[in-house]
Amino acid sequence: MKTNLDRIKNDIEYISQLNTTPGEGTTRFTYTEEYRKVREYLIDEMEKLGLIITIDPIGNIRGRLEGKNPELPPVMSGSHIDTVAHGGNFDGVAGVISALESIRVMKENNYKPNNPVEIIIFVEEEGPNFNFPLGGSRIMTGAYSVEDLKNQINDEGISMFEAAKNFGLNPEDMDDYIVEKGDIKAMIELHIEQSVVLDELNIPVGIVQAAAGRKWIEIEILGDSNHAGATPMKFRRDAMVGASKIISKVDEITLEKAFESTVATVGKINCYPNAPNVIPERVVFVLEIRDTDKKGIEIVKEEMDKIIQRTCKKLNLEYKIKELSKTEPIIFSDKVIDSLVESAENQNIKYKKMNSGALHDACLMANVTEVGMIFVPSIKGRSHCPEEFTNYEDIKIGADVLLGALVKLSCI
Amino acid sequence: MKTNLDRIKNDIEYISQLNTTPGEGTTRFTYTEEYRKVREYLIDEMEKLGLIITIDPIGNIRGRLEGKNPELPPVMSGSHIDTVAHGGNFDGVAGVISALESIRVMKENNYKPNNPVEIIIFVEEEGPNFNFPLGGSRIMTGAYSVEDLKNQINDEGISMFEAAKNFGLNPEDMDDYIVEKGDIKAMIELHIEQSVVLDELNIPVGIVQAAAGRKWIEIEILGDSNHAGATPMKFRRDAMVGASKIISKVDEITLEKAFESTVATVGKINCYPNAPNVIPERVVFVLEIRDTDKKGIEIVKEEMDKIIQRTCKKLNLEYKIKELSKTEPIIFSDKVIDSLVESAENQNIKYKKMNSGALHDACLMANVTEVGMIFVPSIKGRSHCPEEFTNYEDIKIGADVLLGALVKLSCI
Repeated sequence: MKTNLDRIKNDIEYISQLNTTPGEGTTRFTYTEEYRKVREYLIDEMEKLGLIITIDPIGNIRGRLEGKNPELPPVMSGSHIDTVAHGGNFDGVAGVISALESIRVMKENNYKPNNPVEIIIFVEEEGPNFNFPLGGSRIMTGAYSVEDLKNQINDEGISMFEAAKNFGLNPEDMDDYIVEKGDIKAMIELHIEQSVVLDELNIPVGIVQAAAGRKWIEIEILGDSNHAGATPMKFRRDAMVGASKIISKVDEITLEKAFESTVATVGKINCYPNAPNVIPERVVFVLEIRDTDKKGIEIVKEEMDKIIQRTCKKLNLEYKIKELSKTEPIIFSDKVIDSLVESAENQNIKYKKMNSGALHDACLMANVTEVGMIFVPSIKGRSHCPEEFTNYEDIKIGADVLLGALVKLSCI
Repeated sequence: MKTNLDRIKNDIEYISQLNTTPGEGTTRFTYTEEYRKVREYLIDEMEKLGLIITIDPIGNIRGRLEGKNPELPPVMSGSHIDTVAHGGNFDGVAGVISALESIRVMKENNYKPNNPVEIIIFVEEEGPNFNFPLGGSRIMTGAYSVEDLKNQINDEGISMFEAAKNFGLNPEDMDDYIVEKGDIKAMIELHIEQSVVLDELNIPVGIVQAAAGRKWIEIEILGDSNHAGATPMKFRRDAMVGASKIISKVDEITLEKAFESTVATVGKINCYPNAPNVIPERVVFVLEIRDTDKKGIEIVKEEMDKIIQRTCKKLNLEYKIKELSKTEPIIFSDKVIDSLVESAENQNIKYKKMNSGALHDACLMANVTEVGMIFVPSIKGRSHCPEEFTNYEDIKIGADVLLGALVKLSCI
């Protein structure tokens, strides 16, 4: 069984034009009219395949190809159809369409799975509207309560709870739809890589073994604000001098002291008062460290702590360190990974075992079932922008790996 | 002849309470009601001394103690009475009151100068309202045309030209009041140091030899914005890594390669998109270099150019360098400096010859006459903030040095 390139391309291209900001990237927030149209298209496609469709009270959609044994837990695949503001056409949609196409192929080949096979479309994965990323899978897996949706307010002052109601849903009934351990046999999400590894190495498929844990550490360097013209170098306590010397070590420490899987980034910095002629009295920046191995995160954290301490002592600066947030690494299921490897090898598809630096709906699902992910290449690593692109051939290859694994997991 | 500490203290304390933001530092913008009240107080004090008062069409005030020979050009001293938003009570006012007190002492000692002696109060030195620092002296010395005031617009959309008219002035008549070479014999401004040197060294008086020239250079580092979790270290082009390595060298280069008079600062930095989980694609910062010796500025500029080039090459980043602005160093008058030194030494006052890192009205006056400046200590170097403070005793000592020099310059 093989997926069909043209159908995949047609599906994605059709969905792409359902866009709130044509000409300025793709914007499709959850519960908008464009969102509704994509949903209708997909439900229509599922109905053509005779799937049993369930829409939960916050809008997650499940379409079920019944198994020979309907009592068995389903094998599931899917992703999301919402986007960031001015994003691209592949983040989320590639995974939804790969799952849809896999079930189409099963159906047209008259494949009868033992376990049911389901496509899942999560609501609100990106979260730019209600500021609640991974919202659909968080609620569905019970990580957050549906009551929390009342606190997720968008710029128009409307809560996600209210927006769901306005969309015609009854979020208050969500309790009956929470997924628990044992309810699902396995879940696989295909997603664009959102980085450069597969594109650089020219490999069409990544088989994800783990999703990195993350630490966000806010570092504040405190000096004295004085006139930048009038204060001789030796009388200064310049917070920017300290901050720059600390930040300049982040890449070296990570490369030299931690692991290949460790990444560390200073992506946010604010300087006060931020005027060219005033010596900065305060520079605040966020150090993000990620690794699938907790130890890598700790190594960078500890080494940077030493550098901060040493630098500030030498320059007579003060500092504050605050942990803003922390997530644990998520190790994916060996069984699912094995089925993905087997599927790729059976089809002579080149793959790379790799880790995910980002969180996806599959990571939430890992709390309740066995999970795996497939990455397909992002050209130049671009994502969340209009330039986001993945070759349709690569999505088809990824979908073939997915199809093989879904068959394997649903027939034994 | 000696100035009177109590009178100086009373004057400054009286002026301090004429403040738009009591309890939140001192705010007194040009042409406001508080500004008018300070002006009235000072004009009243000048009238008590029988000074001949001239108010030019933009509001600069000159009060003249007539000389034995009224045809001779006056010896002048003064500063400004406007402040930054939420500033202090000494910046500007210390210089105005020292000049006033010097003339008071001349008058009560029945000293009759040969040349006239004048107090001058410049409008709009700080420039936070109309964004036109040194505006009064710039217009008065012809460096800018009064027409330029029409383009200096405050947050309420009112131009400085319009505001002057609303204040009861006729700026269109300014042409007749421009000061030219030969019109003034010498000008001395007493000002708070706005840095830590005199306070750290515990010296009450600085005699300023030169004001630093300045270069503002905008440096833009360009990389690739990618997902900070998903992009391995070795695949990154992180603009922040480059920027931090460059900025971290600024202090070292300045201390090791340039002169004691050279200062360099990165006071402003902006990172794009400035999110903790996105690798920065663009970091823009401003390098300010100041020195009384142009060569010091060039050394730092050239060395930093090399570091920028080398760092960006190594990290595969791009860069743009843009000179935003440039002012030349201003060398003060030997004759005025000598008279200040003589005055201090005659009174056994400890002084330090030093440079000004900042520009003052005196620097504009240097285009048309012989100029000197006296600095008095700023406690902890603080200025432009509510904590700005100078001991009144130090202002009195500075005023004594001023008085001696004014006498010297006006009697020969």
